[in-house]
Amino acid sequence: MIKIAIIGFGTVGQGFAELLVRKRDEIEKAIGEFKVTAIADSKSSISGEFSLSDALKMKRETGRLRDDVSAMEIVRNAEYDVLVEASVTKIGGGDAVEYIREALKRGKHVITSNKGPIVADFDGLMKLAEKNGVKLMYEATVGGAMPVIKLAKKYLALCEIESVKGIFNGTCNYILSRMEEEKLPYEQILKEAQELGYAEADPTYDVEGIDAALKLVIIANTIGVRARYEDVEVTGITQITPEAFQVAAEKGYTIRLIAEVSREKLKVSPRLVPLHHPLSIRGTMNAAMFKTDTAGNIFVAGRGAGKEETASAMLSDFYEIYAGSP
Amino acid sequence: MIKIAIIGFGTVGQGFAELLVRKRDEIEKAIGEFKVTAIADSKSSISGEFSLSDALKMKRETGRLRDDVSAMEIVRNAEYDVLVEASVTKIGGGDAVEYIREALKRGKHVITSNKGPIVADFDGLMKLAEKNGVKLMYEATVGGAMPVIKLAKKYLALCEIESVKGIFNGTCNYILSRMEEEKLPYEQILKEAQELGYAEADPTYDVEGIDAALKLVIIANTIGVRARYEDVEVTGITQITPEAFQVAAEKGYTIRLIAEVSREKLKVSPRLVPLHHPLSIRGTMNAAMFKTDTAGNIFVAGRGAGKEETASAMLSDFYEIYAGSP
Repeated sequence: MIKIAIIGFGTVGQGFAELLVRKRDEIEKAIGEFKVTAIADSKSSISGEFSLSDALKMKRETGRLRDDVSAMEIVRNAEYDVLVEASVTKIGGGDAVEYIREALKRGKHVITSNKGPIVADFDGLMKLAEKNGVKLMYEATVGGAMPVIKLAKKYLALCEIESVKGIFNGTCNYILSRMEEEKLPYEQILKEAQELGYAEADPTYDVEGIDAALKLVIIANTIGVRARYEDVEVTGITQITPEAFQVAAEKGYTIRLIAEVSREKLKVSPRLVPLHHPLSIRGTMNAAMFKTDTAGNIFVAGRGAGKEETASAMLSDFYEIYAGSP
Repeated sequence: MIKIAIIGFGTVGQGFAELLVRKRDEIEKAIGEFKVTAIADSKSSISGEFSLSDALKMKRETGRLRDDVSAMEIVRNAEYDVLVEASVTKIGGGDAVEYIREALKRGKHVITSNKGPIVADFDGLMKLAEKNGVKLMYEATVGGAMPVIKLAKKYLALCEIESVKGIFNGTCNYILSRMEEEKLPYEQILKEAQELGYAEADPTYDVEGIDAALKLVIIANTIGVRARYEDVEVTGITQITPEAFQVAAEKGYTIRLIAEVSREKLKVSPRLVPLHHPLSIRGTMNAAMFKTDTAGNIFVAGRGAGKEETASAMLSDFYEIYAGSP
């Protein structure tokens, strides 16, 4: 019986719990029996005897869980084999760094969707996981359900990855592809994106390239390029004009916010992309192009965000830990 | 010490052997020590004491290997842990079906790039592998280095894959994207493709959709849709005119040879694709779009053929067998 503790019970944590409920049969067939033994959000928690469906219902209806035990106490004392850390990303890592460290020290696997801790202490956390003979999985930190991390770490494990170029922020890609289509100014399209829920009321984190830069740092470290957030040269999309799109289009190009990592470069910036290039992808999609020595260029794309997509990436980590090889 | 036997020593088999020579350090670091203990092509073979580099050199210079022992004798009697089966695809499977069966019965892992046996007896071979506690890996049968099989079997293992739509023949995609660009007739572009080595002197196997249909059958079985070659409805690209591209373009579409599998459909045919859709990809690329329940649409693309790319896919199978989880 695999025991799971969930820390962070907002959109992602609930999404993961909902998938566990919905796909219980398939999961147990592939991996074996499992049980959620504890859940904590920032204000409340539940552990001991409870049903996962009831906990989801309680959280939805009352905004909180049954008990007052803190997340840190759950991490320290609850009985679990794998910690699912789904707190909201804080630059610098926030409390989540300690949750993950503590779980790893206790010899528990960790699956996280939280960019903060992975960016803040990639090496330290990876070494701690290795030392304790457990796995720290973070597919959900980058590109939603798009399999970027497993592609880099497993499928291309015996390739040299020379560079990764990608689109890692769906908000920016939505705004840029709508500017391309509608020939309208940035401000107007941003407003549209906000109305549709594709951009936050304060869009800084997305449109200034911060989110894309955090993901780039994670990919960089994954392919062996040691990097911190401060190392990334970041330019956002707020200065791009409809005229820039027009000039680009006349030469067969469009403009996308491209994050690129190679041995020489760590950069997020708006760049010209040929109209027929896979990275000219439209809408809220994320995409990544791996340039490798022997596998050529490998391209992946998928929805970069979304409750189910992110939860699905975490579920693929869960599968990876327990089902191992095919 | 992992012992490898290679059957089929043409482009793919040599490509794989060359990667083993070139990447020996990385491979041994990731997996452990290995040794090629036997190689056979259709006319000659080598086993016992030999150096892999010398065998490659001998084959390149003389067109054959040292000994006369047959491939079947090698499969039956040589000492190996994993059989790398890289013979040329024959519809119906040819001798390779027996090579693979024999190896599996002996309790040896098999890695193949050969569509023939996998299409001819998917279920039988998979069951035989399972019964003998070994793995039958076939990433290289579809889409070169593009990770289609592992994506379906592992990354999306806990998703329901509702359909897969893809471009699985680089020759057709080259011809269609050049017709789109140049507005020239099929015959003229076919000639260009033949001159560039992208199409065979007899292009039937590619342009009539046979190759794409074989790959579709492999993908179908991989996602649990039982299918044989005869079940695929196949239309090739020979009847497509520049006028068709023009009509399509006026409505914002292009034409691609799309292979699609779902519970209801198993079809290879030229289809309209929106110009901004990822499947409008140009050149000799292969691409696949997985429609899933919880991971959304996942798209992958890469070079669908090529000596190094195919060998790279086989190497990723080798890694998967021996390195297991990350």
